[in-house]
Amino acid sequence: MIPANALLLTDFYELAMLEAYYAQGMEEEAVFDFHVRALPPGYGYLVAAGLAQVLEMLRDARFSDEELAWLRDSGRFGDDFVDYLSGFRFAGSVDAMAEGTVFFPDEPVLRVTAPMPQAQLVETRIINLLQYQTLVATKASRCVSAAPDKLLVDFGLRRAHGAEAGLLAARASWLGGFAGTSAVLAGPRFGVPLYGTMAHSFIEAHDDEMAAFERFARARPDGLVLLIDTYDTEGAARRLPELAGRLARDGISIHSVRLDSGDLAEHARRVRRILDDGGLSSVQIFASGGLDEHGVVALLADGAPIDGFGIGSKLDTAADSPYLDCAYKLCEYAGTPRRKHSEHKATWPGRKQVLRHYDARGRMTGDRVQREDEPAGDGELLLRRVMDHGEIVAPLPTLAESRAHCAAQLDRLPPALRALDAAPSYPVEISDRVRALAREADVRIEEHQRAGGVWRPSS
Amino acid sequence: MIPANALLLTDFYELAMLEAYYAQGMEEEAVFDFHVRALPPGYGYLVAAGLAQVLEMLRDARFSDEELAWLRDSGRFGDDFVDYLSGFRFAGSVDAMAEGTVFFPDEPVLRVTAPMPQAQLVETRIINLLQYQTLVATKASRCVSAAPDKLLVDFGLRRAHGAEAGLLAARASWLGGFAGTSAVLAGPRFGVPLYGTMAHSFIEAHDDEMAAFERFARARPDGLVLLIDTYDTEGAARRLPELAGRLARDGISIHSVRLDSGDLAEHARRVRRILDDGGLSSVQIFASGGLDEHGVVALLADGAPIDGFGIGSKLDTAADSPYLDCAYKLCEYAGTPRRKHSEHKATWPGRKQVLRHYDARGRMTGDRVQREDEPAGDGELLLRRVMDHGEIVAPLPTLAESRAHCAAQLDRLPPALRALDAAPSYPVEISDRVRALAREADVRIEEHQRAGGVWRPSS
Repeated sequence: MIPANALLLTDFYELAMLEAYYAQGMEEEAVFDFHVRALPPGYGYLVAAGLAQVLEMLRDARFSDEELAWLRDSGRFGDDFVDYLSGFRFAGSVDAMAEGTVFFPDEPVLRVTAPMPQAQLVETRIINLLQYQTLVATKASRCVSAAPDKLLVDFGLRRAHGAEAGLLAARASWLGGFAGTSAVLAGPRFGVPLYGTMAHSFIEAHDDEMAAFERFARARPDGLVLLIDTYDTEGAARRLPELAGRLARDGISIHSVRLDSGDLAEHARRVRRILDDGGLSSVQIFASGGLDEHGVVALLADGAPIDGFGIGSKLDTAADSPYLDCAYKLCEYAGTPRRKHSEHKATWPGRKQVLRHYDARGRMTGDRVQREDEPAGDGELLLRRVMDHGEIVAPLPTLAESRAHCAAQLDRLPPALRALDAAPSYPVEISDRVRALAREADVRIEEHQRAGGVWRPSS
Repeated sequence: MIPANALLLTDFYELAMLEAYYAQGMEEEAVFDFHVRALPPGYGYLVAAGLAQVLEMLRDARFSDEELAWLRDSGRFGDDFVDYLSGFRFAGSVDAMAEGTVFFPDEPVLRVTAPMPQAQLVETRIINLLQYQTLVATKASRCVSAAPDKLLVDFGLRRAHGAEAGLLAARASWLGGFAGTSAVLAGPRFGVPLYGTMAHSFIEAHDDEMAAFERFARARPDGLVLLIDTYDTEGAARRLPELAGRLARDGISIHSVRLDSGDLAEHARRVRRILDDGGLSSVQIFASGGLDEHGVVALLADGAPIDGFGIGSKLDTAADSPYLDCAYKLCEYAGTPRRKHSEHKATWPGRKQVLRHYDARGRMTGDRVQREDEPAGDGELLLRRVMDHGEIVAPLPTLAESRAHCAAQLDRLPPALRALDAAPSYPVEISDRVRALAREADVRIEEHQRAGGVWRPSS
């Protein structure tokens, strides 16, 4: 069976265009940018994520024998073209922002430079990988802003959209500042710290709730978290001091209780009181159930004595903005700058760089999208060469390093941009030379269209 | 590298509970139900999807050597327990609704019966697989209701959440009634028909738009769709009759033009007029760009002469309801019915079946959730045995058969439930014997809790 992340996981039109390019021998160098057109409502910034997966995909991009056999047998492509695809490799270069970098609309986050067919075929998967992790890393960072001193854990695997989404959400949320995830595979794959408690089924499978707790505690004594809302939350809490005493004699301590239903703030207050009255003030309260950054803020504003949050469905599905208005667009072919100017979807042509400026305290003051060859002055260049001739240039940062980079980036953001709603916009200037290039590209197209006799300036 | 769909793609707590069950030798038979608690706002029904992937996962469920090595080396589990996991197999049974069946809240869609550890470990992935495909199949069927006579194609791969989501969205949307997908891999994997046009980059890479069209047409003459909004939509349309004449001399005809930006209704009307005036009334108009069932309805209500729609981001991310309020819940262990009664999350205990009633014209009139051993009368039993002792009982329906089943199901739905908004609810009765079982389970728990001295009826 062809795996889900095979090179054939692409849009049909990519192959159709490749066949047309092949027929014409159009293999000159193309430059594509991945950028976002607009921030999700209420968002002040985005966090770049997913680059490592893009680079691995490009490095390993080949059609397997099974894929080639299907292409051949499908009757949809010429044999010569399929033979040509059998030699497909990505041999281009990539310049990109480091994972964890904050960025804004209109800024190229990643630039691919390669012979046209190579740069085109990978469009679909590049968007697919960058968009999702960027959404989750950004949302995770917003949760961290909402509850900077709390333990935040990704619980979303079960409601993520498929296997890869759950796995990459665990990666991206840790990158964005979470403490860890419940998704086990993110441990071996990415080194993300793992967290887990118990399910209601464990309690229900026993006849007595306290017996269930005790058995679990003796089997898994470390970092013990007890789920207390299966039947009667406060009732369970009242029985914990006795259980805690029994466990303490064997050196086992209860780390936390978990609430997963009902009015979390009200239960947390009552449970806190019961635990404190019972001498269990060191036992923490961990809450979950339909939360996101807004839910967390509301609970904390309500004074809920909660020490940690499991954040699941809304994080892993980026529920408030499940997709980004983003694109991977041609900006140069065969040495000539290119752009489309479809309504509301016009793009900036040419090879571009993003320059970032800071004030004396190291806080970001504004970005500038400029041509690659414009001087940097005292700004910081955000796009770096990460792949050359299809090979990753230098060891990629570890995920822990990217996570630290992300935290540092967030510290340098103007604080108002970290607000959860109605954030002001961050200044992103388009350089005069980029604007001039756009006019050049328009004039060139206009002349060609006029030659065709029907050009009208687009609205 | 451990693949994304490995058995380790589970929540940490599943493994923690398994270790506790292992320590206690708790391996008696457990019964779990997958069900949905509530319909997404405005939805009148759901379409069951994802069963085939669940059954394949259960059939093949094993820890690989690489996974076992990680479990052993992680220091988080006892060696004996990891040895035990090395022999893990799913040897239980599954009863389920056929894919394509419409269903409603509180109805078990799938029931797993297996020794507790087997039934528990697979919880996360069962929810992960069923939830997402159900969302997409349902949304696709709503798009079909919105535009029953139009060509509907899934274009969402690039904005789907990862590889598996894009692939399964292609599958689920075809199941729900779409004509096909742009996601190539869904061809070899699932036999879904493939559609594709061209990207703006193809046009931009040429100096002249018509030259780009003509070259594409000669390389890929079948089912030719031309993307005409790169620069000036109507301008491009006006040049098509001449191009069409030139192509016709070589037996090539233009099947459609595609619009992807701006006011789609207005452009479609203008382009339709231009094409008709130019003798191209057989050329169809295909539109895409931020559409879902509501967008399609609005365009058609506006009289837009559009023949087909590419539906992407909002479909593949189920944007209006990116996750379902759903659960996989223990309903029996060791022969005793079980339920939780967490606030707003109480579940029905015991082995249940869903009975569906029809009127004389074959239209659905109401469902009844009853105990498995209650008589069926003249109703239709929706849960069928599909896996026994870990083996798939009989060849699963092909996806085309499931798609036909879905269409037949939708025909039998009360028409009001197919409305896109504010649908009335469909009657789902819980049988007296199921209710009695719930009371029994409550009394049993109450007695145990009372024995602990702190029981209070939960609110």
